[in-house]
This record gives sequence, C-alpha cells and structure tokens, in this order.
Amino acid sequence: MNTQDTIVALASPAGAGAIAVIRVSGPDAITICTPLFKSKRGKDLSKQKTHTIHLGHIIDEQRVLDEVLVSLFKGTNSYTGEPTVEISCHGSSYIQQEIIQLLLRKGCRAAQAGEFTLRSFINGKMDLSQAEAVADLIASDNEASHQIAMQQMRGGFSNEIAQLRQELLNFASLIELELDFSEEDVEFADRTQFKELVARITKVLKRLIDSFATGNVIKNGIPVAIVGEPNVGKSTLLNALLNEERAIVSDIAGTTRDTIEDELTIGGIGFRFIDTAGIRETKDVIEGLGIQKTFEKIGQAQVVIYLFDASLSAFQASLSEGEKYQAIIIEIEKIKNQFPLKPLIIVANKVDQLSESEIKNLQSTISNLHILSAKKGMGVDALKAKLLDFVNTGALRNDETIVTNSRHYDALLKALEEIEKVQYGLDTDLSGDLMAIDIRQALYHFGEITGQVTNDELLGNIFANFCIGK
Amino acid sequence: MNTQDTIVALASPAGAGAIAVIRVSGPDAITICTPLFKSKRGKDLSKQKTHTIHLGHIIDEQRVLDEVLVSLFKGTNSYTGEPTVEISCHGSSYIQQEIIQLLLRKGCRAAQAGEFTLRSFINGKMDLSQAEAVADLIASDNEASHQIAMQQMRGGFSNEIAQLRQELLNFASLIELELDFSEEDVEFADRTQFKELVARITKVLKRLIDSFATGNVIKNGIPVAIVGEPNVGKSTLLNALLNEERAIVSDIAGTTRDTIEDELTIGGIGFRFIDTAGIRETKDVIEGLGIQKTFEKIGQAQVVIYLFDASLSAFQASLSEGEKYQAIIIEIEKIKNQFPLKPLIIVANKVDQLSESEIKNLQSTISNLHILSAKKGMGVDALKAKLLDFVNTGALRNDETIVTNSRHYDALLKALEEIEKVQYGLDTDLSGDLMAIDIRQALYHFGEITGQVTNDELLGNIFANFCIGK
Repeated sequence: MNTQDTIVALASPAGAGAIAVIRVSGPDAITICTPLFKSKRGKDLSKQKTHTIHLGHIIDEQRVLDEVLVSLFKGTNSYTGEPTVEISCHGSSYIQQEIIQLLLRKGCRAAQAGEFTLRSFINGKMDLSQAEAVADLIASDNEASHQIAMQQMRGGFSNEIAQLRQELLNFASLIELELDFSEEDVEFADRTQFKELVARITKVLKRLIDSFATGNVIKNGIPVAIVGEPNVGKSTLLNALLNEERAIVSDIAGTTRDTIEDELTIGGIGFRFIDTAGIRETKDVIEGLGIQKTFEKIGQAQVVIYLFDASLSAFQASLSEGEKYQAIIIEIEKIKNQFPLKPLIIVANKVDQLSESEIKNLQSTISNLHILSAKKGMGVDALKAKLLDFVNTGALRNDETIVTNSRHYDALLKALEEIEKVQYGLDTDLSGDLMAIDIRQALYHFGEITGQVTNDELLGNIFANFCIGK
Repeated sequence: MNTQDTIVALASPAGAGAIAVIRVSGPDAITICTPLFKSKRGKDLSKQKTHTIHLGHIIDEQRVLDEVLVSLFKGTNSYTGEPTVEISCHGSSYIQQEIIQLLLRKGCRAAQAGEFTLRSFINGKMDLSQAEAVADLIASDNEASHQIAMQQMRGGFSNEIAQLRQELLNFASLIELELDFSEEDVEFADRTQFKELVARITKVLKRLIDSFATGNVIKNGIPVAIVGEPNVGKSTLLNALLNEERAIVSDIAGTTRDTIEDELTIGGIGFRFIDTAGIRETKDVIEGLGIQKTFEKIGQAQVVIYLFDASLSAFQASLSEGEKYQAIIIEIEKIKNQFPLKPLIIVANKVDQLSESEIKNLQSTISNLHILSAKKGMGVDALKAKLLDFVNTGALRNDETIVTNSRHYDALLKALEEIEKVQYGLDTDLSGDLMAIDIRQALYHFGEITGQVTNDELLGNIFANFCIGK
C-alpha cells in the first residue's frame, strides 16, 4: 500500500440518510479539495485554519454536485496524522457516489479497509493495539465489550505493556553492556532488581493471559443452552428476559420460533441463548437424532438452563412428588452425567399455577431449584443475577486491563514463555549472553502487541478486518 | 411541535460504519453538550468559536462513552438557524444509542422526521420549496432528478415565484389603494403595465405547469413496457442496456427473470422496464389472462418496446417475407389499435443471424423498424437515444425551472385559475374591489409554494416524508 497516495472513502454507513461523510486523507487532500469546493463566502479552503468548518458547494466543472459542510484538518493534526478533509454531504447514495467519483478523477485513490487507521498507526498517532481497539469499538454491541475496547483504545493496555517493555529493555541494555566488559567480570545490571522485575512481569503476563477467558466471553457473548420440552415456556422465558414481546408465544406445544439463537444483554454482558429440543426419552430414530443434537448444543454452551413446566404436577395429584417429576429428574441426571463440569441451572417454570405447599414439595424433591413464572415475570431478575454470576466481572468493575484479542493472547503467551526462560537463567546463574537472547525474544513479543515489531503481512491481516472508511 | 425544545437525532444512515454523526439543535444545544464533552486540551466547549471542531471524549458521569469530534455552530449560524452541535462518534450502533440516550436524559428531545429542516424553514434559513427540495435531493438517484432538486434547493424555483409574487403584490396594493379613493376615480395602478404583468405571469405559470409532465417523469422514472414472446431476447436486451450481466440469460424459452421491473438510468434519466409475457394469439383461457395482463402493463407504460426474434425467419426460407412475419405484424397492429397514441418502438432482435438482404427485406416488410443485436451490442446505443427522445430534456439542458412536486403543481394550477380571472377582469373593466379579491387569491396560491402561506397540517404532511435526522 502506497502511503503517499491521497485516499478517499465514505466514512458514514452505506445507504441513504440525512447526511453522509466522505473522508479524504493524504499529502494532497487539501490541494485536491480546494478547487472543487466553492465556499459560500468566497473563501479559499487551503488558506483556512485547521479544525474549522466551511459551508459551500462541491463543483464538478460547472455542475453543482451538492451543498456541503467541509471540515478541515491541517498538518498532522488529524485522525490519520495527515492533512484531511471531511465532506458532509446530503445522504443520497447518488450524491455520495458522484462526489467520490469526482475525487477519484481528481487524483485520490479509493481507500482500502482500515487504511485511515493504518495511516494513524504508521504516523504514530496510535500504537497497534490501540488501532485494533478501534475495530473492536465499532463492533462492540454491549457495555462490557464497549468498555474494554474503549480502555484499550485509550491506551490502557499499551501503557502497561510499553512500561514493562521499557524496564525490560533497560535491563537488556545493561546485560548486553556487561558482555562488552565480559573479561572484567562486572555486573551493571543489579540481579536482585532484575529478579524483582522478572517476577513482576511474570505476574502481569499471567494476569493478562488469565483475563483472556473473561475477555473472550465478553467479546463474543456467553452461549447458554436452554433445554426443555415443547411448551414448557422457553419462548415466554426469553421474552421475559428480553422484557419485550419479540418471540411469538403460543399455548400450542411445539410452536416453533423464528430464530434458534437469541442474543440478549444482561448487566452489560452479551448472552446467546440456544434453543434445544429437549432430551425426552424416545424410541423414535428421528427423535433420537434430536436428542443427540441437544447434547451437541449443550456441549457448545458455557451454561445450561434446564427448564420444565411445574404446573403439570397439578394435574397429577394422585402421584407422589417423586413420581410426578420422575422423568424430569432422570433428564437432569442425564445432563449431569454427560457434562459433570458444566454449570447447570434447573428452572421450574409456571410456578404461579402451584400452591405454596406444592412449590415447597417441589423444592424438596429437586435440589438447587430455581422457581420462576416467566409469564408473571416472577424470579426473572434472580435468574439474570445467577447468569451474571458465571462471568468474572470483577476485572471489569475495577477497570483492569482485559485481553480480548487472540493475537495479543498469543504474543503474551510467547512473552511469558521467554520470561520464564529468563527466570530460569537467573535462578541458574546462566551466562549473560544466553540470557540476553531470551530477553530479546521477550521484548520482541511485547513489541508485537503494540506494533513496535511488525511486518506488512501482519498489518494486512489486522486492517483487512476493518470497514472501509475507517 | 415545540420549537423551543433542543432536539437530537442520528443524522448519518442507521447501521454500523466507520463514523456516525449525531446532531443536536436548539436553544440549549451547547449548554447541554458542554458538560458532557471533555476536550483533549481541556477547552470549554461553550467558549469556542462557531464553525470549529474539537477532539475529546463524551462522558456519562465517570464513564467514557467514546472519543469524538464535536463540530460547533453558534447563534443562528447553522443549518437549522439555531445553536447546533454535531458529534462524530465511532460508528457502532451501541455507541450511537448510548450517546443519544445520554443526550435525552440530559434534556434533549428525540427529533421527529424532518424536524431539523422544519426549523431551518421556521427560522427563515430556507423557504418551503427549498426545504422540500432537501428531501428530493436525498431521494434523487440519477443526474436529472438530482439536478432539479439541486436547482430547487438553491432557490431557483422560489426566486422565480417570489419575484412574480412581489410584482403582483405591488399592483394589489395600488388597486386596494384606489378603493380607498373610490369616489375620486383615480387609477394608481397603470392598467397597461398591469396587463403586461398578468400576461407575463400567465406565461410563466403555464410553462411551470407544463414542466410538471417532464418533472414527474424525471422524478419517478419513465415506465417502458417490453412486449415479446419468451426467448426473443428480452433479458439480453436489458443486459445490453444495463451494460452489465445483471439478469440471468439463457437460451431456454421462457426463462423467467428474478425481477419483473428493471430500473436503469440512460442519459441521466431513470427508466423502469416492465417485462410482459407477450400477446401471442391463444385459445387457452390461462394464456388469455396473460394477454390481458400484458395489455394492462402496456396501459401503465409511457413507451412500449415490441421486441421480436428476427432470426426465426432464417428457418422459414420457403415462406414469403409477409408470411414469415405475419404473426408479428398482427401483434403490432393489435397494440396500435388498443393504444393508438402510445409511443411504440418495434425492435427486431438477433439480426446478427440474418444476411444483409434478409435485413433489407425485413425492413421493407415492417415499417419503422429498429434493428438490433442485443447479444453483439449492435443498435443498443441508437435504442437508448430513441428512448431519450421521449423525454423533453430541453428544459433540463437550459437549466430552466422544472416542477416535480405535485403540491406545487396544484398551487400553480390554482394560481393560474385566479390569474385568468384577473385577466378576464382587466378585459371586461371589472371593478377594482372584485379584481382585488382575485389577485389576493392568486397571491395566496403563490405563497403556498414558498411557505409564506402555511398551516400546521400542511407542514406536518411535508416534513413527515423526511427521514429522521434531516
């Protein structure tokens, strides 16, 4: 990618709206735009101050393309660190395209995905992890993922890494200096201080690596499988959790819903609810396949909700509690046997149709039971709280750095591996020249995160995930 | 609608993109936004100059919602004529909503459709026909409709109307003045000059009213029915006109295409091509219904293309030319009988498979024949030119005012009716007091166009067609 080109792209979402924003950045941005912009007050765009807005027309020869507002960013004082012009035009696709086509004819090149942010990185306006956070920020759709991306974009993560890297770099220099004086047996690098630093780095790396599990969950949402027969109230429960009538609910058993997965934000965390067909015992081959599928879905989920209709017991007054719920107890045992470590929430729905003593009997028959009436909204908030308990939101609350990017995770793992070698070297009084190699390796992996170490392929991969115009 | 509220809306298209723009307008726009915006350089937003841009964070209590650029418009120096703040944020739907929700909590009201432009009109930044042109401009999807909307938005239409209205108003005042001196038999209004003005107004009104036919066509596109049997090459022809492989073309007779209508811009004018099943003679009841449907579609079209496969004649060498094309000639006659005034273009397709003498024979058998090979692209440009001939683009080329709005059209018709009464009054020496009534009526209808005469219901109807955020 030529970084000397002046690039153009639509920066606002595609489609028609009230206004659209076209972004032009590069050494010739202002030179190209100035003759195409006829200010209402006859001003020369190139002579205006940076960070100012100007009303006028975009002119193609004699033809007026649109009345626009132009925002001017001069010198390195812009998002990209290059001269930038942002044109706010009327939001029709036709006008957007006409203006972009005009700019292309006048010497701009169409920007590639993420190229504005790439330039921001190249021009030192942000480091690589900050640039990556821009894409995460745009993709964020709940409070937690937004907060993590925001923190990373503001440099929280980079600062932590960069500071450790700098301290490590200082020691590396001292140890390499020792090598130059190796015949004199001097120690410039204080081994006690160095051990202390390595221990500190190890601790931080381990914390960051551990945070990835939380980060990943927050970024991608937590998959929750809902296991239950038709008509136990899965749709009603989802609606109650959603607080709105999204899914279609009816009283006919087996009413299928439009979507199989529902996404839903609880306490700022995204949850993905996966509907399953239940695991009722059957001799039918086809239904047997259904059970197999349910187990597959449970396998993919991080949390399982087993939902049953408690009101059915009301029609079975002649049976004992154990008999009434025998099928349910068997199903719960099956799930526990198959997935002994998977968190399971057992939920009795429709308890509004039971008497208090019936509820008590039920609770003594099935342990750890969560009672609920999705229809009446009873027990719904408590269920939300239970779901949130599975997420370690402590780090989030304390504004700690959480790693969500698997590239960072890989680099941190590799850095830890190298730091542990350094630790071993210190413990075994390894010679400075060998230790220096391990330190350099660790520094390399730190640098990968913030982009001090990089290559074109890596940059290409990272910025290809951006949208065009960013 | 309360015009003292400060309103907020997303101004860029909905959905995710690189950036989104949130517009805040109203007396408290800057007061509301200032405490929510933490400038990077510690600047107080309310103390900055108009038309300046500022980098910083949007803060909800302690929580950072986003890093944004804020554009400041102070006093009446904005699109709406009110203090305005435009926030360019990262383009995730989540962030957009969080910022808008924050602004709503801090005292803004969600803007209704077109409310920003309504305020622009109320605050005298544009007249009503200019405001209406804003919506047309956003909806424009080809050069001609864009040009008309642009001209109207820049005041071309309003100026013409406003000037005539002013001249008429002057005469109205003079004639009304005469009424005050009615016993003295004076004539302040020069009758010769007045007759000249009325003639001029009549001429302009008629031209504007006539332009509506063109305007309407340009705004909505020209419906063209393509009549032809399966496999005569309708899809290939549309593809050739489109210059791209959009429709699926195959050699199997009756290959149905995905869309029944194709929109296509030729020379800046939109055309809508309506595919029909043809009108081949049949005794089949079902097919008979098909013919009826074809006639219905022809009825809705402004131009008809009758397309047939000229290459079929090559397989009928034993027949005379008249016999070969008898069925086709009958079909053409049927269309002409049914729609004697509708422009009809008869197109012989696949002529690349005929010899030169065969083409000559064909042309002498069927008069006014357009020969074409859609596959080879032969005769396609000539067909485009023929289609364009049906549009009166003269006015467009000469940058004359073209009326596209049916509300304006109605008002112009009514104004003409009143002006003709005035004309009649002048011709028959009608008394001043009666003539004054007709003049006032004409003035009223002129005022309806530019919005000097208006009411809430009318404004409600007009701005309801806008998008939110404009």
